[in-house]
Amino acid sequence: MDIQDLAQRLRSGERRALARAITLVESSRSDHRALAAELLEVLRDSAPREAMRIGLSGTPGVGKSTFIESFGKYLTGQGKRVAVLAVDPSSSRSGGSILGDKTRMELLSRDPLAFIRPSPSQAHLGGVARRSRESVTLCEAAGYDVVLVETVGVGQSETMVEGMTDLFILLLAPAGGDELQGVKRGIMEMADIILVNKADGDLKPAALRTVADYAGALRLLRKRAQDPADFPKVLPVSALAEEGIARAWEEMKTLWDWRAANGFHQSRRAAQARAWFEDEVRQALLARLTEDPQLRALMGEKAAQVTKGHLSPVRAAAAILERM
Amino acid sequence: MDIQDLAQRLRSGERRALARAITLVESSRSDHRALAAELLEVLRDSAPREAMRIGLSGTPGVGKSTFIESFGKYLTGQGKRVAVLAVDPSSSRSGGSILGDKTRMELLSRDPLAFIRPSPSQAHLGGVARRSRESVTLCEAAGYDVVLVETVGVGQSETMVEGMTDLFILLLAPAGGDELQGVKRGIMEMADIILVNKADGDLKPAALRTVADYAGALRLLRKRAQDPADFPKVLPVSALAEEGIARAWEEMKTLWDWRAANGFHQSRRAAQARAWFEDEVRQALLARLTEDPQLRALMGEKAAQVTKGHLSPVRAAAAILERM
Repeated sequence: MDIQDLAQRLRSGERRALARAITLVESSRSDHRALAAELLEVLRDSAPREAMRIGLSGTPGVGKSTFIESFGKYLTGQGKRVAVLAVDPSSSRSGGSILGDKTRMELLSRDPLAFIRPSPSQAHLGGVARRSRESVTLCEAAGYDVVLVETVGVGQSETMVEGMTDLFILLLAPAGGDELQGVKRGIMEMADIILVNKADGDLKPAALRTVADYAGALRLLRKRAQDPADFPKVLPVSALAEEGIARAWEEMKTLWDWRAANGFHQSRRAAQARAWFEDEVRQALLARLTEDPQLRALMGEKAAQVTKGHLSPVRAAAAILERM
Repeated sequence: MDIQDLAQRLRSGERRALARAITLVESSRSDHRALAAELLEVLRDSAPREAMRIGLSGTPGVGKSTFIESFGKYLTGQGKRVAVLAVDPSSSRSGGSILGDKTRMELLSRDPLAFIRPSPSQAHLGGVARRSRESVTLCEAAGYDVVLVETVGVGQSETMVEGMTDLFILLLAPAGGDELQGVKRGIMEMADIILVNKADGDLKPAALRTVADYAGALRLLRKRAQDPADFPKVLPVSALAEEGIARAWEEMKTLWDWRAANGFHQSRRAAQARAWFEDEVRQALLARLTEDPQLRALMGEKAAQVTKGHLSPVRAAAAILERM
């Protein structure tokens, strides 16, 4: 594989080159890992490009796909190039939701200004984090203006996505006050903007009430000193009726520009790079367990004893670590 | 700390001893880790006790706390001792949901036959898995008949909980057919019994429709060859009205007894012990990164270069791994 050529085609905006590059960083084969590392270094040495990296979280049922379709089309309508990456390992068994992802974001996926990449199928969250970070970097190098990183988790994967984006958007559905309890405080604190979707038709009053409820809840949470006083914000949107999308985008831009003007993106990305480095070390260390044949044999032997109940998991682990 | 004494008091059913033991296994201090390992070994050498380990998953808003309260009270009403463990790291920043956990399961928490333990505050999912597994073992050794392991995740933590329980229950709220799409196929496949909550009052018809929808969806999924043909099942419950709880318990018992009679719990627990061992090795390996002072210093140095943008995360990691 000619990495220089791939890098050049990727930088020139060729979608197939981007897709191929992401497949490369998602691979766990060691030769692919080496090529991926080389590609990232080549791109790193090119003139830097900066996308607005947006994390988008929302539990199943809030209308996330419809929102992405609506928001994505709005942005491409303004001439912006939009990449959408999903980060959640979809399933450790079979992948994908019941109805599949084929019908998701149908219009956006046919838009020449958009690039949509479904979840990596790897179940291991650490591996997913690394590959997603690299994929974000690739989309940025390919000249996308906005990189939307989508997650459906309720905690762990949000932390991961916050670690690779500049803005964090939480999408909610209209809900009664009781259900406020369900949203983890940690995720609320990550959110820069909360969008209450389905603010249309019969659900509109409930959506507006939810906006008010969450605005109230946010006041209880500590503000980030660095942001303008009126952030985080809560806004109603209707992905279906395509209402409130422009306003949501304006608010994202406002916050982004403010942070850019104050150098906050730079410091945040520096901290993210550091975390990336530390994670990279951890992942590579774990890979050693499976790479060394002797160690692998010993692991197999101890595992057999544990399976038979002759040895406790903790004692078996101690035996392995003594050897290393 | 006298581990023999703690083990003895725990085995005699002293709740404070159990609480203390769980605090010990949740600690990351290395002296505590050593004591925890010793405690587990002492308990392992005692006459074995077996609880029914039930994983319970449900996204925020489905009424999980109300269900646990209702289900737990039903079981203690039958003279059974019930332990409830929550496994999700509640937040990487501040922990706990907005309204806090204090008002959750008020009746059950005062029940002398019940033991409730909130989530560990550790954000690291790997660490949480280890500690939760050990906590389940402790509850079992303390003679609890049922250990309920609660999770709110939408994927990763379910896999973790499935790895430490015998039965997996998924709690859902009544919902339209569209929202079926949101439930990941992997979680559906894990579920032995799906309970559709809120089957009361105005929501009852919707709940019954949801039961039918999911029963249909389950037929599309591959059955586990080992289970009776009518599992996994979908049943309506009302945690609030305390309806359907006895039926749900009967079905759990039926499946549990069937699996026990066929030796499936034994083989499942053997596989879980193996996975536990492998995870234990991984966790201990990672701990080395922070324990060795020289390595820690080098990590700090490289991290500083990455933060300043002088070195890419991937190259910095390679430098560390070369040294190890």
